[in-house]
Amino acid sequence: MLSELLATCDYIAKRNLCPATGGNFSIRQSGDKMLMSASGKDKANLKASDFVVCNFQAQWLEGEGKPSAEAALHGMIYRLSPQTQCVLHTHSIPVTVLSMLEAHESAIRFHGYEMQKTIAGFHSHEETLNLFVFDNNQHIPTLAIQLMDNWQEAHLASGLIVRGHGLYSWGNSVHEAKRHMEGLEFLVECELTRKRYQK
Amino acid sequence: MLSELLATCDYIAKRNLCPATGGNFSIRQSGDKMLMSASGKDKANLKASDFVVCNFQAQWLEGEGKPSAEAALHGMIYRLSPQTQCVLHTHSIPVTVLSMLEAHESAIRFHGYEMQKTIAGFHSHEETLNLFVFDNNQHIPTLAIQLMDNWQEAHLASGLIVRGHGLYSWGNSVHEAKRHMEGLEFLVECELTRKRYQK
Amino acid sequence: MLSELLATCDYIAKRNLCPATGGNFSIRQSGDKMLMSASGKDKANLKASDFVVCNFQAQWLEGEGKPSAEAALHGMIYRLSPQTQCVLHTHSIPVTVLSMLEAHESAIRFHGYEMQKTIAGFHSHEETLNLFVFDNNQHIPTLAIQLMDNWQEAHLASGLIVRGHGLYSWGNSVHEAKRHMEGLEFLVECELTRKRYQK
Amino acid sequence: MLSELLATCDYIAKRNLCPATGGNFSIRQSGDKMLMSASGKDKANLKASDFVVCNFQAQWLEGEGKPSAEAALHGMIYRLSPQTQCVLHTHSIPVTVLSMLEAHESAIRFHGYEMQKTIAGFHSHEETLNLFVFDNNQHIPTLAIQLMDNWQEAHLASGLIVRGHGLYSWGNSVHEAKRHMEGLEFLVECELTRKRYQK
Repeated sequence: MLSELLATCDYIAKRNLCPATGGNFSIRQSGDKMLMSASGKDKANLKASDFVVCNFQAQWLEGEGKPSAEAALHGMIYRLSPQTQCVLHTHSIPVTVLSMLEAHESAIRFHGYEMQKTIAGFHSHEETLNLFVFDNNQHIPTLAIQLMDNWQEAHLASGLIVRGHGLYSWGNSVHEAKRHMEGLEFLVECELTRKRYQK
Repeated sequence: MLSELLATCDYIAKRNLCPATGGNFSIRQSGDKMLMSASGKDKANLKASDFVVCNFQAQWLEGEGKPSAEAALHGMIYRLSPQTQCVLHTHSIPVTVLSMLEAHESAIRFHGYEMQKTIAGFHSHEETLNLFVFDNNQHIPTLAIQLMDNWQEAHLASGLIVRGHGLYSWGNSVHEAKRHMEGLEFLVECELTRKRYQK
Repeated sequence: MLSELLATCDYIAKRNLCPATGGNFSIRQSGDKMLMSASGKDKANLKASDFVVCNFQAQWLEGEGKPSAEAALHGMIYRLSPQTQCVLHTHSIPVTVLSMLEAHESAIRFHGYEMQKTIAGFHSHEETLNLFVFDNNQHIPTLAIQLMDNWQEAHLASGLIVRGHGLYSWGNSVHEAKRHMEGLEFLVECELTRKRYQK
Repeated sequence: MLSELLATCDYIAKRNLCPATGGNFSIRQSGDKMLMSASGKDKANLKASDFVVCNFQAQWLEGEGKPSAEAALHGMIYRLSPQTQCVLHTHSIPVTVLSMLEAHESAIRFHGYEMQKTIAGFHSHEETLNLFVFDNNQHIPTLAIQLMDNWQEAHLASGLIVRGHGLYSWGNSVHEAKRHMEGLEFLVECELTRKRYQK
């Protein structure tokens, strides 16, 4: 599963969805552990040795380097969702900008897009998909608690946004997490573009 | 012809015209059959084994997996146009957004673009090219019937849009279908950009 | 020089500056001839055999295929400018859109850009660079005559635009023609972007 | 360190951050010298032999070609900041346009972006990052003096903008300079995008 994750990280970097050291990526390990990208790495060139093992409280267990600061948020997703195998955190311009434009909105609502169907559990463009937006906070456990409090709906969307910071998406496999990430990034870029034409 | 289609799918993926599992692609086979990309595949890495044989009613005949949900729309194009050899369905942001902005328009009109000449049968920027837009519908046979009802003009444009969903383009060879797809995607992105400057 | 031109065509295609069969490219040959990309080729995969030899009146002399329709415009540039060795015609979205927005302007004026200095003969951002825009015309000799009539200033800019159609740029080597093309495409995209913020 | 710089130049070219001959790049050498990209090279294909050795006053010492015109600005950064090992000058469309839109502003202020933390010394999106903008000047020593006069704050941002011209970013290693460049380019593109939605 790690080689699939590395290929996905590579794809994410090529599409410029995690510039500088933005972005972090993990997969679930057995026994309430996860393999997590280490802090401060250039996300455009991740290798197996750039990942460390930590528990869901973000405590380092094995490997070189320390886990990304956001590890506790990844851990909370694995705790709340036993079937989740992979979490991807991207840091794109459209997600950053749309979430800052809508400074007081706690969710972005998508309606009418065929692409909604790429998110597990959605079957029609006539449904509404709510993607949660949390205010950014340098204290990651605070974000983790917010996620816990809003899990029901966040889980439905298979993703969430931290304002001015980026998108988290997850899935039951690396393949599904990547599909959710691509689908949500697509939807956000569409909404941002549409907004330009509103009077 | 399949290797040319695979190279085209690869090109489409590199230009990010079919993110997530959006997009599907087919070529005509002898005897009222088509070779169709299977449902749920990552369109960025299509291989020969990701295609299945089905008839024009979208019924599976051979291969691993099931045909894309939109197969019946591909089939209708092959039925209506005996010379068509290839159908490409892309799922780009500009097509999605422009077709949703123009929520009540049944066509996008292009005029004044040299690029119109890349569509078979057009010879001057002074002509007008009408690209049909159908409302999205999860019932694909409904879209197929709409296409039949509007075939005359849709055929002229060598393409059509399903609102909030994407572009279908076709041609007498993979090469021509790709040229039509690139030309129509170009024209849509130009129109979307121009619209920003309208008072 | 042809291998350098092929590398440049490849670069142009990768940056999506000549989608579909838009765009054509030439280099001067001895004896009032030029090597010209053939009509109808996919410009993303040009090979040596996709070029034909023709004279400056666009008449075919050697090679497989026929010269691009715009060959007479290339020929006129070589006739007017004995030092020009290469002409590149790109077909980008920003050039198409900006020239159509300014439907009645016969030139785009650039001022204040460091990038102006990449055009031969310009030495400061405080100078003004006028890039001619001609109305599109399916009769290429008409465009060639217009170019002749406006040669003095067009030559200064090392390029010109045909409205809704694209950019021609040229230089004393493939390297210089490419540099002019990149500089002018950059300047046009900047102007188009700036225009969005004007009240 | 040169091979790391060449890989970074390659990355910068692939992301189209230094079109035409825009952009120049250097690393510190021992004894108040620097290795500097030579003038007039195609920055998309830099090789070791495209760099020359010069002193911090931009005087040529070794190698083929002459140092970039902006070498004196690189030299001033190395003089003011003994720990700086690498200076990158990119020439992107968003930096060019945003700095020209804000024609009378001497700085761009960033607030609320997680990405600010990628700049050395910043720890929260709640801080404010001021990126200096100097008016362009063909006399590079004038820019160097301006930088000296504003060093305290410019150093904080690990970068500065020359209006209509581009971004300079630097760091204690090629890796850090690249991270700062990516972070600042990201922030500028976000600000430019946000500005479109302001009434």
